[in-house]
Amino acid sequence: MLVLGVDIGGTSTRALVTTVAGERVAFGSAGAGNPVTVPTAEATASLRAALDAALSGVDPAEIRAVVAGAAGASHADPIGRTIRDAGIGCPVRVVGDAVTAYAAGTDEPTGTVLIAGTGAVAARVGDGNLVRTADGLGWLLGDLGSAFWIGREAAVATADRYYDGASATPLTRAVGAALGVDDATGVSTVDGDAVVAAVYRREPRALAALAPLVTAAAGDPGAERILDGAAAHLHATVSRVLGDGPLVLAGGVLRHCAPVREGLLRRLDPRVRVSTAEAGEVGAARLARRLVAQLPRTDGRAEAQHRRRE
Amino acid sequence: MLVLGVDIGGTSTRALVTTVAGERVAFGSAGAGNPVTVPTAEATASLRAALDAALSGVDPAEIRAVVAGAAGASHADPIGRTIRDAGIGCPVRVVGDAVTAYAAGTDEPTGTVLIAGTGAVAARVGDGNLVRTADGLGWLLGDLGSAFWIGREAAVATADRYYDGASATPLTRAVGAALGVDDATGVSTVDGDAVVAAVYRREPRALAALAPLVTAAAGDPGAERILDGAAAHLHATVSRVLGDGPLVLAGGVLRHCAPVREGLLRRLDPRVRVSTAEAGEVGAARLARRLVAQLPRTDGRAEAQHRRRE
Repeated sequence: MLVLGVDIGGTSTRALVTTVAGERVAFGSAGAGNPVTVPTAEATASLRAALDAALSGVDPAEIRAVVAGAAGASHADPIGRTIRDAGIGCPVRVVGDAVTAYAAGTDEPTGTVLIAGTGAVAARVGDGNLVRTADGLGWLLGDLGSAFWIGREAAVATADRYYDGASATPLTRAVGAALGVDDATGVSTVDGDAVVAAVYRREPRALAALAPLVTAAAGDPGAERILDGAAAHLHATVSRVLGDGPLVLAGGVLRHCAPVREGLLRRLDPRVRVSTAEAGEVGAARLARRLVAQLPRTDGRAEAQHRRRE
Repeated sequence: MLVLGVDIGGTSTRALVTTVAGERVAFGSAGAGNPVTVPTAEATASLRAALDAALSGVDPAEIRAVVAGAAGASHADPIGRTIRDAGIGCPVRVVGDAVTAYAAGTDEPTGTVLIAGTGAVAARVGDGNLVRTADGLGWLLGDLGSAFWIGREAAVATADRYYDGASATPLTRAVGAALGVDDATGVSTVDGDAVVAAVYRREPRALAALAPLVTAAAGDPGAERILDGAAAHLHATVSRVLGDGPLVLAGGVLRHCAPVREGLLRRLDPRVRVSTAEAGEVGAARLARRLVAQLPRTDGRAEAQHRRRE
């Protein structure tokens, strides 16, 4: 008896098959599958490619439950259809990616998750369901403390430094080079304008690519101010939904940027139990195993398929 | 002897002819002429239409100096060419719109200007020239305290209120209606998502259209918090460049939104002399008169044209 966990993200789509005891059996991945950020046909193709790779050595009839996590749960219908098209007849549950991220960090059904990757959102999870969220408003309205936010603050700090006519710092030098404006004229308004124009020539979301430069500029007071600001924002966001149970931390910023993670932990009540999430598909597979445990011993459809195969 | 002042803006292009003594002689206006925000052909056509309207009853040879204010002074060449194509042969000076906004509020050559309209910028002006700016980074990076910023804060406050499952306030009700999401389902995540989705369906800059709803919701603590936040941001921005001489306030937010203006004045050192700018073309015409006063008595080109006409 197997289960399938799927993580449908804005960067990659990942499918993991495990036994009901939790052993990894097969894995497949493909490109962006999030129907909110990529066209439906591309999203469907990515999901199908990840499923086909994960199921290539597996009998789909062995799969007893599927959980898929995706941003924007309103897209559950096409996701469920693509999974059934891949030959799976068992129950499929599509949940918000905050629910799978939470489950990727704990076995407890009730608690809180804070995700800071390209975006930032906190969510309260109760009995495996999304109860309430904070932030998660996207780059234009929120995502405070996310990689996008950190990158934008770095661009602002660089433009401000040029406009003020102040000398470059390690951070503003790295950001200027990344934006292709490293040859300053010495005229503050001209150099500041060049930084700003370089940002507006790119997609807004491309600002997130500047975030690693901030992490790398450790020791630069400007960089440390930005990272501490991110930690303060993330603390404020999670505080709006924090409750009983563990707090799971997920996403690249909380995983790989120590100053943000430490700044957050320093601000939290020390009694909060904190754990770090594994990959989203690990949480999805864990939820699928829980689903199997709750199912009646014999599931009609799966049993029918099972017999047909024999 | 006449002068011409031109204000080339993102909403309208306005041309004013005055005598060298400052009397209004003729005026013309047309649509957006800012080459930063509209295509060059459209910008040129707007400028030409405003000039033709202002010059319809005026002999262009009588014009002894022209000053045009525009965001992005790097576009001086096409602006100068369009003005000469309208039959004007006298000296033309293209300056940043902060310089004309400053001159629209004072006769003194040195001081500070704070503009808060759709965007927000502060500038130090010395002897009629732009010396240094603060903010003015545009909607993606800054414009803190602008109409865009106020509108975005209103959208965030509305989304947050829905996500929190709290009852509507006058502000969130008005914003929800403006975004077309006034029928709440009562499920906090669904209603919050609807507000966010409605914002992302629009152009980012359209958020500025929500700002008047905040001004109109006076008495709503959420609205007052946003307007006071705008005042605090504008105070921080202007403080970075404030110096000797008067402080000129310009732009729709500082002109029409009393709580922001009062919040700013309350934070300023009471010794700062504050004045309010007239329209940009009034400042441009004032700078053109100053240019005439500095010119040698007989300007070659203008004199030549004058003779040709006779």
